[in-house]
Amino acid sequence: MREYQFRYYTPTKVFFGAGAIEHLDESLAPYGKKVLMVFDKNTATATGIYDYVTNLFREKGYQWWEYDKVDPNPRLRSVIEGAKICKENDIEVVLAIGGGSVIDCSKAIRAAAFFPGDLDDYDGLWAWGAGFGNVTKTLPMVVICTMASTGSEMDGGAVITNEHTHQKGGAFMGELFLPNVSILDPKYTYSVPKRHVSAGAADIFIHTSETYFDPATDIDLVDGFAEAIMKTVAKYAPIAIKEPENFEARANLMWAAPWAINGLLSGGRMSGWTLHGLQHPMGAYHDIIHGQGLAILMPHWMRHILSDNTVDRFVRYGVNVFGIDPSLDKYEIANKAIEATEDLFFNKMEMPRTLSEIGMTDEFFDEMATQATARPMGMYVPLTKEEVIEIYKAAL
Amino acid sequence: MREYQFRYYTPTKVFFGAGAIEHLDESLAPYGKKVLMVFDKNTATATGIYDYVTNLFREKGYQWWEYDKVDPNPRLRSVIEGAKICKENDIEVVLAIGGGSVIDCSKAIRAAAFFPGDLDDYDGLWAWGAGFGNVTKTLPMVVICTMASTGSEMDGGAVITNEHTHQKGGAFMGELFLPNVSILDPKYTYSVPKRHVSAGAADIFIHTSETYFDPATDIDLVDGFAEAIMKTVAKYAPIAIKEPENFEARANLMWAAPWAINGLLSGGRMSGWTLHGLQHPMGAYHDIIHGQGLAILMPHWMRHILSDNTVDRFVRYGVNVFGIDPSLDKYEIANKAIEATEDLFFNKMEMPRTLSEIGMTDEFFDEMATQATARPMGMYVPLTKEEVIEIYKAAL
Repeated sequence: MREYQFRYYTPTKVFFGAGAIEHLDESLAPYGKKVLMVFDKNTATATGIYDYVTNLFREKGYQWWEYDKVDPNPRLRSVIEGAKICKENDIEVVLAIGGGSVIDCSKAIRAAAFFPGDLDDYDGLWAWGAGFGNVTKTLPMVVICTMASTGSEMDGGAVITNEHTHQKGGAFMGELFLPNVSILDPKYTYSVPKRHVSAGAADIFIHTSETYFDPATDIDLVDGFAEAIMKTVAKYAPIAIKEPENFEARANLMWAAPWAINGLLSGGRMSGWTLHGLQHPMGAYHDIIHGQGLAILMPHWMRHILSDNTVDRFVRYGVNVFGIDPSLDKYEIANKAIEATEDLFFNKMEMPRTLSEIGMTDEFFDEMATQATARPMGMYVPLTKEEVIEIYKAAL
Repeated sequence: MREYQFRYYTPTKVFFGAGAIEHLDESLAPYGKKVLMVFDKNTATATGIYDYVTNLFREKGYQWWEYDKVDPNPRLRSVIEGAKICKENDIEVVLAIGGGSVIDCSKAIRAAAFFPGDLDDYDGLWAWGAGFGNVTKTLPMVVICTMASTGSEMDGGAVITNEHTHQKGGAFMGELFLPNVSILDPKYTYSVPKRHVSAGAADIFIHTSETYFDPATDIDLVDGFAEAIMKTVAKYAPIAIKEPENFEARANLMWAAPWAINGLLSGGRMSGWTLHGLQHPMGAYHDIIHGQGLAILMPHWMRHILSDNTVDRFVRYGVNVFGIDPSLDKYEIANKAIEATEDLFFNKMEMPRTLSEIGMTDEFFDEMATQATARPMGMYVPLTKEEVIEIYKAAL
């Protein structure tokens, strides 16, 4: 019988629910009164967060600096600009207001503020962020989350693109990057555009599947948690798309997001993260929406890896997530499960089905596949560079 | 549509798995080298933990004090004795080695070490521990857990009995009581006696049910998490009883325990905790095993509250936890679900079925019911003192 070991550590304090922003002052105050506010201007304005926060700051005597130039796939440029503001003004705490991009960029900023080198040295900063043990200190960080998606509001990861080298991810990760406090009000997601609601929900679903599709079959508890999250997305994402102000749907999605990625599902598993390995190089070459890229790839990856070695996993997935009749033939269940995944993403969640639809061509497939396979690819089912290109082509 | 707000905060760092004790030195060292070790002697010896820890302490230059006089339902006497050792020796960190009783007692000790009054003043200490805002500081605490049961290893509660007043629970709770680090090695549970394995597993199951049986039906995500835990207990507890060294069963149970109580399941719910409200007074008058008392009461409580208002919840429970045919009549499903609960506890988990079997009489039913209803009883379905006595009698 297999024995294993893992660590679980998620010390982020979460204030969840309607009106949770009332906890902002108590969240920031212990860390100081000099704040770098990193935010998405449209969202912060549309939700009323910008007015609430700046009024609070005036009333309570905070000093704040504003940075609203984060790209959708945040680049090192933004990290550097934010970190310079921190260094020049002795910022005491970073306040991130937005979705995954803003939160990830803020995480990298809170570390880069202590970068010992020249902040304009892109590659030096990147190597420092990726090097083990280099980051020993980060600025405190509070999040006001406006999207149900990446789960960055309750994990220690930040996906940043080094635009000089087209590298995405791989730097700025670890326990020092976990937000100190996250404020999650489902009502702030009411105004998220439909294509981002579905992309965010697909992101939650696929984060979950990245650890669920795993050789370990001896962790029923964790499988059950994962199935609860996937069923939640399957039930509530279509509702949130049709009824943007449905609190029940928004709240379930918003609370599912962090649990898909904060470690609950990875204990005792190898956590292959194959789809993210395939998708991140796409994001480094094209400005696409992360969750859309993942959803387009997923069914093709599934068909590619379905075999006698994996079919039992697909059966469990099909029966427990989509309610497929367990008395059918194993491969029939597996194929129905893949079709149900497509039906969920491309019909019920109204997402684009092909890479062409989101503006991609095959121009960089070779470079992307090289990058995807630079480290061993596919812990669940290993993939070669040629197989990665095959999956990209099938998805085109 | 209902809107709600909650807080989630579980900063305990967990090292889980076979050999996780290798992280003990890194867990203690940041807090100091003067340790109060609170432990159950039999368990600490049988598992080899005592030898491992004391050898480590000698090798690494720790100073330690030993306290092994904690009762199964820990009394204030033990808290006071432990706190005196802390005060007299400037203890820097408490190391709890054991199950729920040892961990709970250690939590109260880490607070009582800062009690500003005379430690021999039982009622003064009790009132101080229960008073809002009195505890502003606790000693750091590391846990080596040896039971899958209360979940105290990852929550902020401590159930202590004031033996002068027969009060149980209600003091020493909150975020300051969350362990800093918990080491959970499923192999340490191999030697737990069968009756404690089943009582611990029932405790996990019933912690989960305490929030699951709730008026809120709009939190599918959390319901799914709860069902995963209950299914885990239903599957693995009978295995752990028959095959004490089954790592898979022990690991699933040990990881289920903290999630049943650390806040994951209570967000957005009222968390009635009715069965604990009924059971704690029993523990204050009789030295019974907590999980056995809960399991005996549960089916009687369920039959008592089954009505048109609650039947849909029982249907969900029966279908999703026990796989009962959803096409049957609602009440048929509900009754089958209660029978399946009895079958699980009293047949598959081989637990005692009546209060008489665990040595109780009706002598204190009146006092117990008075205590149980001192605060409003049964947030899900309110219960009067007379109804509480009726449930006790049915369980006798």
